[in-house]
Amino acid sequence: GLKGGIVAPYTVYKGKAALSVAPILPTFTKLDSGLHVVDRRGVVMLKFIPAIGERKYDWEKKQVFALNPTEVGSLISLGSSDSCEFFHDPSMLSSNAGQVRKSLSIKPHATGGGYMISLTVTNNILKTRENVSVPFTTAEFAVVKTACSYALPHILGWDKLTNKLPAGSAGGRVDA
Amino acid sequence: GLKGGIVAPYTVYKGKAALSVAPILPTFTKLDSGLHVVDRRGVVMLKFIPAIGERKYDWEKKQVFALNPTEVGSLISLGSSDSCEFFHDPSMLSSNAGQVRKSLSIKPHATGGGYMISLTVTNNILKTRENVSVPFTTAEFAVVKTACSYALPHILGWDKLTNKLPAGSAGGRVDA
Amino acid sequence: GLKGGIVAPYTVYKGKAALSVAPILPTFTKLDSGLHVVDRRGVVMLKFIPAIGERKYDWEKKQVFALNPTEVGSLISLGSSDSCEFFHDPSMLSSNAGQVRKSLSIKPHATGGGYMISLTVTNNILKTRENVSVPFTTAEFAVVKTACSYALPHILGWDKLTNKLPAGSAGGRVDA
Amino acid sequence: GLKGGIVAPYTVYKGKAALSVAPILPTFTKLDSGLHVVDRRGVVMLKFIPAIGERKYDWEKKQVFALNPTEVGSLISLGSSDSCEFFHDPSMLSSNAGQVRKSLSIKPHATGGGYMISLTVTNNILKTRENVSVPFTTAEFAVVKTACSYALPHILGWDKLTNKLPAGSAGGRVDA
Repeated sequence: GLKGGIVAPYTVYKGKAALSVAPILPTFTKLDSGLHVVDRRGVVMLKFIPAIGERKYDWEKKQVFALNPTEVGSLISLGSSDSCEFFHDPSMLSSNAGQVRKSLSIKPHATGGGYMISLTVTNNILKTRENVSVPFTTAEFAVVKTACSYALPHILGWDKLTNKLPAGSAGGRVDA
Repeated sequence: GLKGGIVAPYTVYKGKAALSVAPILPTFTKLDSGLHVVDRRGVVMLKFIPAIGERKYDWEKKQVFALNPTEVGSLISLGSSDSCEFFHDPSMLSSNAGQVRKSLSIKPHATGGGYMISLTVTNNILKTRENVSVPFTTAEFAVVKTACSYALPHILGWDKLTNKLPAGSAGGRVDA
Repeated sequence: GLKGGIVAPYTVYKGKAALSVAPILPTFTKLDSGLHVVDRRGVVMLKFIPAIGERKYDWEKKQVFALNPTEVGSLISLGSSDSCEFFHDPSMLSSNAGQVRKSLSIKPHATGGGYMISLTVTNNILKTRENVSVPFTTAEFAVVKTACSYALPHILGWDKLTNKLPAGSAGGRVDA
Repeated sequence: GLKGGIVAPYTVYKGKAALSVAPILPTFTKLDSGLHVVDRRGVVMLKFIPAIGERKYDWEKKQVFALNPTEVGSLISLGSSDSCEFFHDPSMLSSNAGQVRKSLSIKPHATGGGYMISLTVTNNILKTRENVSVPFTTAEFAVVKTACSYALPHILGWDKLTNKLPAGSAGGRVDA
């Protein structure tokens, strides 16, 4: 397995499930020109872990949903009465496309203060539909927003920038 | 004692007491897999130091209260007319649980502009109840909010993240 | 060409064009005094790339516009119903000044939610006027705002500061 | 003089004067315990440089004003119709105390959009009173606010924190 990494998710444990949130940084590839470009883009990974007893969670049954930078932008700009929903197909662009659909929704509590974060996984082959929801308080959601605002430039790779001009800019004026 | 650390609290000195605020970063443990996980989570430490004369403070009598990440999230999302209160038991999960209760409250000044930050320590054995309060101006509280927003990803350990995938994700798609 | 740099733009692909956004850090010059000063200031570079088919973009025909720190300040403080416009002359201060005029405008969608980002390049010699526009959703613009807020101190060079006092301050009080 | 430092101020040039803004990081002292504590606190340094012709500024006649962390907190929390004013005595705590008084004021333009930043230096011995003012646009002030929000944890020294507990906490629970 992969060695040496660091895992530091922000995890909220609730009655029916836990939800952990952690960024995964992009990876870079070196081109022949010596320039490094983003190979696999970074994401903010959400993991939903169902409860199987008091304060016990079954990590084997976790469901994941990886927010891309634009989805992170949507989350961090969410107003207190706004909601958002994202759809992913884990097999997109493969022959299994369309078999499984994941939907993540973030909706403010009707009574105000905090959000319900829900993941629905629909499998059209197995004819199953699983749903797991974790209520977040205003304070817990503020942690997610602040931490994701911090993470966003890092998952874009902007923390790795140097003062070298990209090759394509050679000869041009920077302040054109 | 511990050597080599750096102490850089933001301290506000007022007539009856001083209040210092400083983050303490998490510590990590290396697992057999080579992965590092958070061992002791980070906090934002508040220290209340009673005054014993003009510009003199008795550090021996300081009382501490450590804000966990979610409590920091509550603090940094506090609206100008909002208040919040947190309860800690320093002996939680030990045989002394329930003997001492600490309560931290942050309340906006009735006249507007700034907050009163108060710590109450109730000892049910000694039948004592100590209270220490420090008034913060709007500007002083803005320092705390801005510095704690900066500190939050660091006390979560997100500044230490690498681009390695956690072992549990091996074989899965990142953008699932 | 320049080697070893890292390119990590945030790129939004739309029907008629793509728009990529990336910071370029300042470069420094060492003075005889040993002090380093900013030589070429940093910018946030915008690149507009016209589409030439479905999901195909012609990078040879890209048009660039480099936001200076104050223009970045304008962008990140843009209210949801505000618009802004910047004018650049790529040949400013040269004998070709006034031949080409670039204008970048950011305008909120009339229907609310998101902005239209447009670049117009007017060439007074060739009597040409090119326009390229890319619609940004609220989430995509939130990414740009958050990433540019992160980038701003870096393009100013404030992330490189040391605790040395500049030579000109020697003998003076820091808290004067 | 001091060597090797980096100077990267954000400077706004206007008709009657220029104003440059740059953070100066704190310095640390190592105690016998091995612990490092802040020796000289960090500041955000403002320099006002009077104009002596078109685009010419007389750096010899510059006036400085160093914002401490709480004053920076005041600046970054300034609402669009708020103003603030700070008073410094460059000789405070010395025998010359009271001879010179510096006052910095930040006031929103009456017509909306941007602020007037003014420094007044009153010398009670020489019976002189100098005033220099620089108008900032909304965008220029947004740069100052964003850059100072970035600088604040750094001038406090929070970017240097380690995961070591300060000596005084030994034996205590972190989450007390």
